[in-house]
Amino acid sequence: MKVTVTKDILSANDQIAARNRELLDSHGITAFNIMASPGAGKTSLILKTIEFLRGKVRVGVIEGDIAGSVDADRIGAVGISVVQINTGGGCHLDAGMVANALASLPLTEIDLLFIENVGNLVCPAAYRLGEHQRVVLTSTPEGDDKPQKYPVMFSEAEVVLINKIDLLSLLDFNPATFKRTVTSLNPHVRIFEVSSKTGEGFGDWIDWLMAEIKLRRK
Amino acid sequence: MKVTVTKDILSANDQIAARNRELLDSHGITAFNIMASPGAGKTSLILKTIEFLRGKVRVGVIEGDIAGSVDADRIGAVGISVVQINTGGGCHLDAGMVANALASLPLTEIDLLFIENVGNLVCPAAYRLGEHQRVVLTSTPEGDDKPQKYPVMFSEAEVVLINKIDLLSLLDFNPATFKRTVTSLNPHVRIFEVSSKTGEGFGDWIDWLMAEIKLRRK
Repeated sequence: MKVTVTKDILSANDQIAARNRELLDSHGITAFNIMASPGAGKTSLILKTIEFLRGKVRVGVIEGDIAGSVDADRIGAVGISVVQINTGGGCHLDAGMVANALASLPLTEIDLLFIENVGNLVCPAAYRLGEHQRVVLTSTPEGDDKPQKYPVMFSEAEVVLINKIDLLSLLDFNPATFKRTVTSLNPHVRIFEVSSKTGEGFGDWIDWLMAEIKLRRK
Repeated sequence: MKVTVTKDILSANDQIAARNRELLDSHGITAFNIMASPGAGKTSLILKTIEFLRGKVRVGVIEGDIAGSVDADRIGAVGISVVQINTGGGCHLDAGMVANALASLPLTEIDLLFIENVGNLVCPAAYRLGEHQRVVLTSTPEGDDKPQKYPVMFSEAEVVLINKIDLLSLLDFNPATFKRTVTSLNPHVRIFEVSSKTGEGFGDWIDWLMAEIKLRRK
């Protein structure tokens, strides 16, 4: 019985996700679902990316958190359209929550939409939101063994970002080991190394984002 | 209907958790449920604690992971009784998984049991396992705002450990801000600052563990 209920929920979620995707496509918006452990630096990545894209791309953000508006306040402070979703205890965003948030965003004024998921390396992987690309962010202090322990998330991502590479010399994180494990799970994944603190490595990430946006922008 | 199913599952879980607790009590074992984000350093904390307790306390470990046995291999390598649970995609341990693991451990040879939960700052909070104390580990690179964003986990813990304090001077983590937020959610919580890398701050944590163990040891 439990399985049946779960299947029904997923199927309803996927239907709403497909409608979200159509709505985004009709406005020429490219949407990225940003998933990571708590504290990997999702909001800092989004803020640094906005800095690099200023004047070139119009960005909107949906912030998913269990409670509070710490992240939305940080994004709003730099003049970006942002909607906060509070899941009220829920461990992931679902497509219905995102549909509601989309209704509050000025879609005609957005080229790129970041959807920052709840910090969780497990549950968000099971829920499509209507995004075009799933981006998993990991950070060097978490260790290079995370793909082995959380394989589903890493298997289903289109892009993996290694954040906090400015701390690399202080830690045991081995980028080669990490990349080998991710690639064995997910041969077609793109991997970028960045520091949202120093901006190191952002060139390739921004180039890739710009190419994705140009595919859909009207 | 969804709510009813969830309630039934939780209630069955709590019944098994109560039986686990009785089994542990009958052997004079004190059990700690270690919960944290992926990469906060749960296994490193357990390994460093084992080092401090060697010759004084007999330790056993249950390792919870979605997949693999990376952590159990690290614990087993130092000669400790360890059982690996693979949840097969599941985002938390439940009491039934722990009951099965307890059946494989030499309970008459253990004083202290660490149950390392799946790395997840949300879902494990909802499932009691039969543990005596819930320990939440956070790490300085995650940032000092985690209690605001993941309030349930921090509200229900008996103990919060701040790990990786050796990195404090390099990061924006403010221990006073962090402690103030945790205490506002959870006035009776104990907070320890440690580095599992250097051993800094382990004195108070070990003293507290020893006092807990003495309460139940036969």
